[in-house]
Amino acid sequence: MSHKLYVVGLGPGAPQYLTAQARLALEEAQILCGYTVYVALVSGLFPEKECYTTPMGQELDRCRWALERAAGGKTVALVCSGDAGVYGMAGPVLQLAPEWPQVEVAVVPGVTAALSGGALLGAPIGHDFCVISLSDLLTPWEVIEKRLRCGAEGDFPLCLYNPASHNRRDVLRRACDILLAAGADPQTLCGYVRNIGRPGEETALLSLAQLREAELDMVTTVFIGCSTTLAAGGRMITPRGYERKGL
Amino acid sequence: MSHKLYVVGLGPGAPQYLTAQARLALEEAQILCGYTVYVALVSGLFPEKECYTTPMGQELDRCRWALERAAGGKTVALVCSGDAGVYGMAGPVLQLAPEWPQVEVAVVPGVTAALSGGALLGAPIGHDFCVISLSDLLTPWEVIEKRLRCGAEGDFPLCLYNPASHNRRDVLRRACDILLAAGADPQTLCGYVRNIGRPGEETALLSLAQLREAELDMVTTVFIGCSTTLAAGGRMITPRGYERKGL
Repeated sequence: MSHKLYVVGLGPGAPQYLTAQARLALEEAQILCGYTVYVALVSGLFPEKECYTTPMGQELDRCRWALERAAGGKTVALVCSGDAGVYGMAGPVLQLAPEWPQVEVAVVPGVTAALSGGALLGAPIGHDFCVISLSDLLTPWEVIEKRLRCGAEGDFPLCLYNPASHNRRDVLRRACDILLAAGADPQTLCGYVRNIGRPGEETALLSLAQLREAELDMVTTVFIGCSTTLAAGGRMITPRGYERKGL
Repeated sequence: MSHKLYVVGLGPGAPQYLTAQARLALEEAQILCGYTVYVALVSGLFPEKECYTTPMGQELDRCRWALERAAGGKTVALVCSGDAGVYGMAGPVLQLAPEWPQVEVAVVPGVTAALSGGALLGAPIGHDFCVISLSDLLTPWEVIEKRLRCGAEGDFPLCLYNPASHNRRDVLRRACDILLAAGADPQTLCGYVRNIGRPGEETALLSLAQLREAELDMVTTVFIGCSTTLAAGGRMITPRGYERKGL
C-alpha cells in the first residue's frame, strides 16, 4: 500500500501550465480531490479516476479527508490552483500530517499567478518583489495594511491576489490609498490579468491612479510597479538593472 | 517565416519541472540559446537542434542575438532557469524588442526557486512573501538593505536568491544582521535548499542565528520565516491562518 499524498500545484488552469511532475502525480493518483473548480480543471484528463470535491471554505475538511484516504492505502492527489504552497493546501496538509504518521506527503510546485500573469503582461516582477493577498478572510486587515505599506516603502513591485470578493468591493481602492499615502506615485505603472489560462483571458496596463478606480473581480491578479517599472512595446517591465551594462 | 522568440522558464533544472507549454516552445524552436549551464539542462532532450550559448555576464549580447535570429525568420527559444521573468531574460528582451518590431516575443513562465525550493522544505511561503536577491552586481547594496529591512518590518517570510558568490562571501551574514537589527527573532525558523532538482539536492532547517553562521554557496536558495512560521514533521510552514477555522 502506498500511503502517498501529493499536494499538486496545477498552475492557472489550462493543462499547458502543468509541469511534467504534476502530470505524473495526477496519473499515479487513484483519487483526485480539491476545491470543485480546480478538480474540474483536470478531471477531464482522467475521466476514470475517483474524484472528491468540496466547496470553498471547507479546506481543512478536504485536507483531513485526503490524509485519511492516503492513510487507508490510497494514492491521493490534492489539487491546488497555481502553486501548492503559495496560499495553497501544502501548509494545512503538512500541519495536520503528523496525526497520520504513515502518510508520505510530497509537495509538487506549480506556476503561481504572479508568474503566469506576469508572463502575459511582460516582466512586471523582473527584480525583487512581494506577493500580498487582499483577502481578509484569514488575515486581519491590519496585517495586510502593514505589508502593503512596507512593500511600498521598500519600493518593491507588488503582485496582489484576491483584489475583490462579493463582500469586499472596495478592498483594492483601500490598498491603492495605502500605497499612495506611503508615497507611491499616482502615475506608477500597474497592470492586471483576468482569467489567466482560461476562457476570457484579458490583460490591461494602467496607472496606479486608474487602478484605484478600477472595478476588478476575484479572478483577477494585479501588478503594481515600483519606481523603475516601465512600459515598452505595450509590455510592463521591472528592469533588473542591465542599464548598468548599457541597456 | 515565423519571427517568433520564446523566452522560456525551465524551472530548476530537471525535465520534470518543465511545463507542457515550455516543452512545446522548445520543440517548436529551431534554435535554443541561453547561458551555457541552462542550455545544457535541455539540449539533451533535443540533440538535433542548433544551440547558441554565452557565458554568465553576457546577457544583453544573448538577448540581441536571439532577437536578431528571430528577426531573420527563425523560431528561437531563449532559456532561463526558474521563471523567465523573475531575475530572468524576459525583462531585457522586452526592453530591447522594439528595435526588432517584426519579432513576436512570448514569455513562457516556469517554476522559480521560491516555489520549487519551497515545496522541498514544505510550505515556507504559504502566505504573503517577498523575494529578494542578495546579488549586488546589478543592484546597489543600499537598495538590497532597504528591501531586507522593509521585508522584516512587514513580517513577511523572505526567499533570498544568490546568497553568496565568489567575491561576496559575507553577504548572507550581512543580510541576517540587517534582519536582526530590524527586530527579527534570532530563533526565527529558516531553511535552505541546495541544487534544487539537480544531483546533490539537499535541504536543511535552522534558526536565523544559525543561518548567520552558515557558509552557503550560489546554488542555494534561502528561506527566512516570519513570526508565525513553524516546523511540523520536519517541514517548514508559514500558516495562512486556518487556525482561525480550528486548525
